[in-house]
Amino acid sequence: MADNYSFEYFTVRLPTDHQYVAHVEINRPERLNAFIEVMWENMAQIFNKLSLDPRVRAIVLSGAGEKAFTTGLDVKAASEGLLSSDTKTDPARKAAVLRRHITAFQDCITAVERCEKPVIVALHGFSLGLGIDLSTATDIRLCARDTRFGVKEVDIGIAADIGTLSRLPKVVGNYGWVKEVALTAREFGAEEALRVGFVNAVYDNRDATIAAAFKLADLIASKSPVAVQGTKEILNFSRDHSVQDGLRYTSVWNSAALQTQDVSAALLSGLQKRTPTFEKL
Amino acid sequence: MADNYSFEYFTVRLPTDHQYVAHVEINRPERLNAFIEVMWENMAQIFNKLSLDPRVRAIVLSGAGEKAFTTGLDVKAASEGLLSSDTKTDPARKAAVLRRHITAFQDCITAVERCEKPVIVALHGFSLGLGIDLSTATDIRLCARDTRFGVKEVDIGIAADIGTLSRLPKVVGNYGWVKEVALTAREFGAEEALRVGFVNAVYDNRDATIAAAFKLADLIASKSPVAVQGTKEILNFSRDHSVQDGLRYTSVWNSAALQTQDVSAALLSGLQKRTPTFEKL
Amino acid sequence: MADNYSFEYFTVRLPTDHQYVAHVEINRPERLNAFIEVMWENMAQIFNKLSLDPRVRAIVLSGAGEKAFTTGLDVKAASEGLLSSDTKTDPARKAAVLRRHITAFQDCITAVERCEKPVIVALHGFSLGLGIDLSTATDIRLCARDTRFGVKEVDIGIAADIGTLSRLPKVVGNYGWVKEVALTAREFGAEEALRVGFVNAVYDNRDATIAAAFKLADLIASKSPVAVQGTKEILNFSRDHSVQDGLRYTSVWNSAALQTQDVSAALLSGLQKRTPTFEKL
Amino acid sequence: MADNYSFEYFTVRLPTDHQYVAHVEINRPERLNAFIEVMWENMAQIFNKLSLDPRVRAIVLSGAGEKAFTTGLDVKAASEGLLSSDTKTDPARKAAVLRRHITAFQDCITAVERCEKPVIVALHGFSLGLGIDLSTATDIRLCARDTRFGVKEVDIGIAADIGTLSRLPKVVGNYGWVKEVALTAREFGAEEALRVGFVNAVYDNRDATIAAAFKLADLIASKSPVAVQGTKEILNFSRDHSVQDGLRYTSVWNSAALQTQDVSAALLSGLQKRTPTFEKL
Amino acid sequence: MADNYSFEYFTVRLPTDHQYVAHVEINRPERLNAFIEVMWENMAQIFNKLSLDPRVRAIVLSGAGEKAFTTGLDVKAASEGLLSSDTKTDPARKAAVLRRHITAFQDCITAVERCEKPVIVALHGFSLGLGIDLSTATDIRLCARDTRFGVKEVDIGIAADIGTLSRLPKVVGNYGWVKEVALTAREFGAEEALRVGFVNAVYDNRDATIAAAFKLADLIASKSPVAVQGTKEILNFSRDHSVQDGLRYTSVWNSAALQTQDVSAALLSGLQKRTPTFEKL
Amino acid sequence: MADNYSFEYFTVRLPTDHQYVAHVEINRPERLNAFIEVMWENMAQIFNKLSLDPRVRAIVLSGAGEKAFTTGLDVKAASEGLLSSDTKTDPARKAAVLRRHITAFQDCITAVERCEKPVIVALHGFSLGLGIDLSTATDIRLCARDTRFGVKEVDIGIAADIGTLSRLPKVVGNYGWVKEVALTAREFGAEEALRVGFVNAVYDNRDATIAAAFKLADLIASKSPVAVQGTKEILNFSRDHSVQDGLRYTSVWNSAALQTQDVSAALLSGLQKRTPTFEKL
Repeated sequence: MADNYSFEYFTVRLPTDHQYVAHVEINRPERLNAFIEVMWENMAQIFNKLSLDPRVRAIVLSGAGEKAFTTGLDVKAASEGLLSSDTKTDPARKAAVLRRHITAFQDCITAVERCEKPVIVALHGFSLGLGIDLSTATDIRLCARDTRFGVKEVDIGIAADIGTLSRLPKVVGNYGWVKEVALTAREFGAEEALRVGFVNAVYDNRDATIAAAFKLADLIASKSPVAVQGTKEILNFSRDHSVQDGLRYTSVWNSAALQTQDVSAALLSGLQKRTPTFEKL
Repeated sequence: MADNYSFEYFTVRLPTDHQYVAHVEINRPERLNAFIEVMWENMAQIFNKLSLDPRVRAIVLSGAGEKAFTTGLDVKAASEGLLSSDTKTDPARKAAVLRRHITAFQDCITAVERCEKPVIVALHGFSLGLGIDLSTATDIRLCARDTRFGVKEVDIGIAADIGTLSRLPKVVGNYGWVKEVALTAREFGAEEALRVGFVNAVYDNRDATIAAAFKLADLIASKSPVAVQGTKEILNFSRDHSVQDGLRYTSVWNSAALQTQDVSAALLSGLQKRTPTFEKL
Repeated sequence: MADNYSFEYFTVRLPTDHQYVAHVEINRPERLNAFIEVMWENMAQIFNKLSLDPRVRAIVLSGAGEKAFTTGLDVKAASEGLLSSDTKTDPARKAAVLRRHITAFQDCITAVERCEKPVIVALHGFSLGLGIDLSTATDIRLCARDTRFGVKEVDIGIAADIGTLSRLPKVVGNYGWVKEVALTAREFGAEEALRVGFVNAVYDNRDATIAAAFKLADLIASKSPVAVQGTKEILNFSRDHSVQDGLRYTSVWNSAALQTQDVSAALLSGLQKRTPTFEKL
Repeated sequence: MADNYSFEYFTVRLPTDHQYVAHVEINRPERLNAFIEVMWENMAQIFNKLSLDPRVRAIVLSGAGEKAFTTGLDVKAASEGLLSSDTKTDPARKAAVLRRHITAFQDCITAVERCEKPVIVALHGFSLGLGIDLSTATDIRLCARDTRFGVKEVDIGIAADIGTLSRLPKVVGNYGWVKEVALTAREFGAEEALRVGFVNAVYDNRDATIAAAFKLADLIASKSPVAVQGTKEILNFSRDHSVQDGLRYTSVWNSAALQTQDVSAALLSGLQKRTPTFEKL
Repeated sequence: MADNYSFEYFTVRLPTDHQYVAHVEINRPERLNAFIEVMWENMAQIFNKLSLDPRVRAIVLSGAGEKAFTTGLDVKAASEGLLSSDTKTDPARKAAVLRRHITAFQDCITAVERCEKPVIVALHGFSLGLGIDLSTATDIRLCARDTRFGVKEVDIGIAADIGTLSRLPKVVGNYGWVKEVALTAREFGAEEALRVGFVNAVYDNRDATIAAAFKLADLIASKSPVAVQGTKEILNFSRDHSVQDGLRYTSVWNSAALQTQDVSAALLSGLQKRTPTFEKL
Repeated sequence: MADNYSFEYFTVRLPTDHQYVAHVEINRPERLNAFIEVMWENMAQIFNKLSLDPRVRAIVLSGAGEKAFTTGLDVKAASEGLLSSDTKTDPARKAAVLRRHITAFQDCITAVERCEKPVIVALHGFSLGLGIDLSTATDIRLCARDTRFGVKEVDIGIAADIGTLSRLPKVVGNYGWVKEVALTAREFGAEEALRVGFVNAVYDNRDATIAAAFKLADLIASKSPVAVQGTKEILNFSRDHSVQDGLRYTSVWNSAALQTQDVSAALLSGLQKRTPTFEKL
C-alpha cells in the first residue's frame, strides 16, 4: 500500500489493529486543514483507490491537529485563483470556466459518496463550509463536543456549490433548519447537530470521537462486505429515486449478491456462535 | 366476512366495538411470528381484500404472543429454500430465479402500502428484519417499551431487499441514522425509535400499544372515508414526486373527491355539534 | 411603494428600522384571518411584487390580532361558493371547474415559495388548515407558545389540496408523524411542532415571535443578496431533484452568480472587520 | 366576446360557420409578424382566456400576410431592449434580470401548451426562430408548401431559450435531426418538415393550409369536449412522465371524466347514426 | 402445458415446428374479438404464465377470424356494466369504483409489457381502441395490408385510459401525429402505420403477417435467452428513465447476466459456425 | 497540441484548412478498428481534452481503413480478459468486478456525449456493436452507402451494456424498430438507417462521408461557440428531463450566456453581411 497512498496533505493508514479499516486524515494543520485545489484532487484519488482496495471494508476520515477538522476552502488561495477578477471580460466565457471548475470540484466531493466502502467521519473543532459539504458526502457523522459547524458560504457572498445545498437536507430530512443555517451562515454546535440528526453521536473530544469512529468501522468491517457494500449502494440509490424504482434496483442488485457464499458463512457462524470470515471484495 | 378472511398464520377480525376498524394479527407465535413464504402471500391477499372492503376504514396490525411482533424471515426455512445452494449452476439463470422471487416478495409488502385504508402497526418485543420492512409499509407505527428493533439483514450476509432500504429513510427522513443501523445491524429500542421518528409513540406494553392503535384507528374511522383515503393516497404519491407533480395530482384527485356529499355532511355535523355519518366506501 | 402594496386584507410595510426587510400581515382579525378568495389572490400579487422589489431582501409574514395567524379557509364563505352544490349536474364538467379552481388556489400559495427573497413566518394562536399549507411554502417557521396547529381538512370531508400534503412531509422529513396529524386532524402545539422540526424555535408570545422573525430577517438581509437568493433557489430545486441534478443545476447557477462583486466586497469587509454593503438586487 | 379578445397585434375570431372553433391570427404583417414584448404577453392572455371559454373547443393559429407566419423575435427591438448592453455592471445581477425575463417569456409560450383546448397551427412563409418555439407548443402543425423553417438562434449568438430545445426533440422524436438544424441554423422546407414529422401535412398555399386547419378543428370540435380535453391533458402529462406515472394519472383523471353524460350521448348517437350534442365545457 | 393454458376466449399453443415460441390467439371471432372483462383478466394470466414458462422464448399474438384483430372494448357489454348509470349517487364514491376498475384493467394490459419474453403482435383487419392499447404493450408490431387502425375512444366520449395515451407516443416517438389520431379518432391504414413507425412491416394478408411474426419469433428464440430477456428489460427500463439511470441499471443487470455460460456457448458456436444451444430460462 | 494528443490507436489532427475543427480517427485498421481496453480509455482522454481545447469548436470522428468504422469489441481479446471464466468462484464478487468494469467502460463512451463541442461521426463499412454504442453518444451521424450496422450483442450472448439500449431509442425516437434490431441482431444498411433517422444523410463512400462531416463541422465551427455549446448542452439536458425542467435549466444557463459579446458581434456581422469572429472558448 506504501507508495500509492502517499498524497500531499493527507495521511492514509491501514492500522494493523483495525482489520479491514483505513484511516484517512486531512493533514494541513498549520492552516487549520483549509483546502487548496490540490487537496480535493488528492482526496478524490484516495477515495477512488480505497473504493477498490480489497484490504479495506470501512473508512475513518478525520482532520489532523487539535483545532479544526477543516475551516473549509482556503479563501486566501481561492481569492487569488478561481475567485479572483481575471482578465476574461466576456461574462459567458468566464461562466464556462467557472462551471467547469465547480463541476470538477463537486466531482471530488462526490468521490467520497461513490466510494463503495462506508465512510465514517470524525469531526472536531472548526468544521466549516467545505467541511459541511464533505461530511454530507460521508455515510455516518460523529463529532467531538467542541465542534463548531457552519454553512458559511453566504458570508463570502456565494451560495454553497459543492454539495451542501443538495445533500444536507437529505441527510437531516428537515428543510426549515437547513434554510436557517444556510441563509444566515450562523454557526452551530455539537448538541444542535445531534438534535437535528446531522451527527449520530457526540463524544468528549477529538480522540474519543476518532476512537468511536474506529469502533463503528470495526463493527462494519466485521460483516459480510457483499452485504455492507450492497446496503450502502442501495441506500444511496434510494435517496434519489422513488420507492418503486428503489425496489426494482434492489431486486436486480440482490439477484447477483444473494449468490454469495457469505450468506451460508454468516448463517453457519451464527449457529456455531463464532465469528465468520469473508472472502475479500 | 367469515370465509374469505381466514388465512393460515393470520387472524383477521372486525371487532364489533370498533366500527369500521379491522384487526390483522400475525399468528405464528410458537415461532415468534417468523415469516415463511405462505405468510407473506397470505398477508398480501388480506390487505388486498381489506382495501376494497366497505366495512373497513382503518386497520390495526399486530403480532400474536408476548415475545415478538416478528423476528423476521424464518431463516431456517429460507436457507432450505430460496437461499439454499441449489442445482442451477449458471449464475445468470440463478439470478433470474432470485430476481423473480424478490420481486414477488416485495409486492406482498407493497400490498400493505397500497391498501387504500390507513394501517396502524402496534409493535412489541422482537421486531427485526422483515418486521422493519413491513412496518415501513404501514402508515403509523406505535410500539411497546420492550420492543427490540433491528435491520438485521447484514448479519446474514445480505442487503435488505424487501423494502427497508427504500422506505425507512423516507419514513424517518434522516440518512445518517439509517445508515448506521443498516450497516451495523445493531438493535435499538423504543426510546431511540421515538427520538428518530420511526414510531409516533411508545406505550407500556403490548396490550397498551394495541389499545392505543385501536383508539387511533377509531378516530380515523370516524372521519369521512373519502377524505381519509384521499389523504393517504396523496401523501404516498407526494413521497415519490416533486412538489409540483404532487400538487397537480392532488388537483385532479380532488376534482372528483370534492363532489362528495361528505363535505356537506361534515360541515352540517360541525355546526350541529353531532357526529357525522358517511356513506360506505 | 405606496399604492401598489395596498391590498385588501393585507398590510405591507417596509419598516424604516429594518433595512431591506418587508413585513406582510394578514389583516382580517375580526374573522380570525380566515381566507376568502380575494385574499389568496392578493397574497400572490404581494409576493410576486416583493420578489422583484430591490428594496426587499427578506420578508416577515404574520397575522394581525391576538387570537390567530389564520383559522384557514373561511368555510362559511367557501360552502356558499366553491363547495356549494351548484347547478351543474354533469360530474365531469363540475370536476373541470373544481380542478381549475384548485389549481388557481395552489398557484397563489406557490407564489410564496417562488418569491426570490426568503420568507420567515411568525405563527401564533390558531394556525389551522390553510395556515399550515401557507407556512409550508415559507422558508423558516417561528411560533409563539400558544400556537394551535392543525391539518384540519379531513374534518370537513376533504383531503388538503393546496400544499400541505405535498410540502409538509418534505419540511419535517418524517412521514409517520405527518400521516398521523393529517389522517386524524388532531391539533398540536408549539412544543410538538418544535420537536418534529416544523418550527425552528418557540417564543413566549406573538410579539416576541414577530420580533425574533425580524431579527432573523435582519441578519439575512445583511448578507449578499446574490448569495442569499441563490441559496434559497438551489435549496428549493434540490428538494425536488436528485443530488446529481442538484449539483448540475448549482454549477450552472453559480457560473453567473460567482461573477458578482459581492464576493470581493464580502471578503474585503471580512478582512477589514466592517459591514459590507451590496448593490441592490 | 367582443372586448376581451381585442389585443394589439392579434385578431381573435369565433367564425360563425365553424361552431366551437376560435381563430387566432398574429397580425403585424408589415413587420412579417416579428414579435415584440407586448405580443407574447398578449398571446398568453388570449390563450388563457380561450382555455376557459366554453364557446371554444378547438383553436386555429395562423399568421396574417402572405410572406410569413413569423420571422421570430424582432431582433432590432430586442437589441435595443433586453439584449442591449445596459448599465448594470455586475454580471450576477444582470443574470438575475435576464433569468426573470426569459422565464416570463417562456411562460407566455407555455400558455399555448397549457390551453385546455387543442391548438392547430397553420404555418406558411417564414416560420423562423420564435416561430418554431411557438409551434412546438401547439398540438398539431400543418404547413404550406412555401414554408421556410429555421431554428435560427445560433445565428444571433444565442441558444434558443423559450422552448425549441426542450420541446422540438419530443415533438419529432429524433435527436440527430434536431441537433443538426439547431447547431447549424440551416433552414428547411415543408417536405423535410413532413418527413421528420414536424408537420402532419403539407398544403398548396397559405389559404389551403388554414382551410385544412379549420377542417381538422371542426372535426375535433364535434367530439365530446370532456374526451378531447382529457386526451390533450393526458398526452401532455405522459410526455414528461414514465408510462406507469402516466397510467396512474390517467386512472385518476378518468375517475371523474367517465361520469360524464357525454358517454351515453355519444353511444346513443352512434346507435342512432346522428350527430351527438354535448354540454358546454 | 395442457390445462393451465386453457383460457376462455383465447387459444394458446406451443407449435412443435417453432421451438421455444408460443402462439396466443384472441378467440372470439363471432364478435370481432371484442373484449369483455373476463378476456383481459384471462390475457393477463396467460402472459404472466408464459413469462415464467421455460419452454417459451418468444411469443406471437394474433386475432382469430378474417375480419379483425379486435374491434376493442365490447361497448355494448361495457355500457351495461362499468359505463352504465349505476345507483351510486355520490360522485366521489363512484370515482373510487371507476379508478379501481381502470387500474385493474390497465394492469392486465401491462402484463403483456412485463412478460419477460418478447411479444410480436400480428395485426389485421379492425384493430381499434383497445387493439391499439394492447399492441403498444407488445414489443414489435407487424400488420396485414388490410388493417384498419384507430384510437377510437373520443368517439365514445372518453379519453383512452388503458395505455394508448401513455405508450403510443413513446412507441412512435412523434407527438404531432399521435395528437391528430387521438383527438380526431380518425382511422388509418397499414401504410400510414408503417410510415410513422407504429408497425415494423406490412404483409399481404393475415396469414402472411402471422407467418412473418413466427419467422421473427423463431429468430429471437434461437438466441441466448439471457441476452434476449435482458435486452427487453433494459429497453423497457430505459424508456422511462434518463440515459444515466439506464446505464446504471444496465451495469447492475449485466453484472449477473454476463456470468452466463451462454457467452462462451455463443462465442464457440460462432467460431465453429454451428447453431448454439442454450440452457432453459 | 503535439504531444498530448498522441494516443495509441487514434490519430488526432487539427487540419489547417478547417479552422476550429478537430479530426479524431480510430486507427487500428488491420483489426477492422476493433476495440481493446486501452482504446476506449484513450478515446475518453482524447474527448476530455478536446472538450476544453479552445482551438476546437466541432469534431469529426471516423475510422481508418476502407473496410470498417469499427467491428466493435475485439471479442477475442475480451474473451481472454473480461469475459473469460476467471478464478473467482463467488458470483457476488465476480458481479462486483464486472459491474466496476462495465461502469468504467460506459464512462468512456459517455465522455463523447459530455464533450462540450459537437461531435459528427462519419460511418462506413462495418459499424457493429460498440460502433453503435459509440455513435449514439455523438451528436450527428452521417454514413457511407456501404455501411453495415448491427446491434450485435445478443449474438454473443449478452445484452448491449455500454450505451446502445439506453441511447438508441432516444436517438431515433421509435421503440418498435429498436426492439427488432436489438432482439434479433440483424444487420441493416444505410438506407434503413436514414429512413428511421439513425443517420442524417447517406453519401457515396467513405471519403465523401468524411468530406460531408467536415463541411457540417466547418459550418458549426463558424458560429458563436457560446451559442453552439449551449445548444448542445441544453439539448442533452432536455433529453433526460421534463419540458418544464428543461425550460428552467435553460433560463439559468442563458442568464450567463446571453451576456456574451457574441450576440452583438453576430448581429453586427449580420447587418454588415460579413463573417463574424468570436473570442475563443
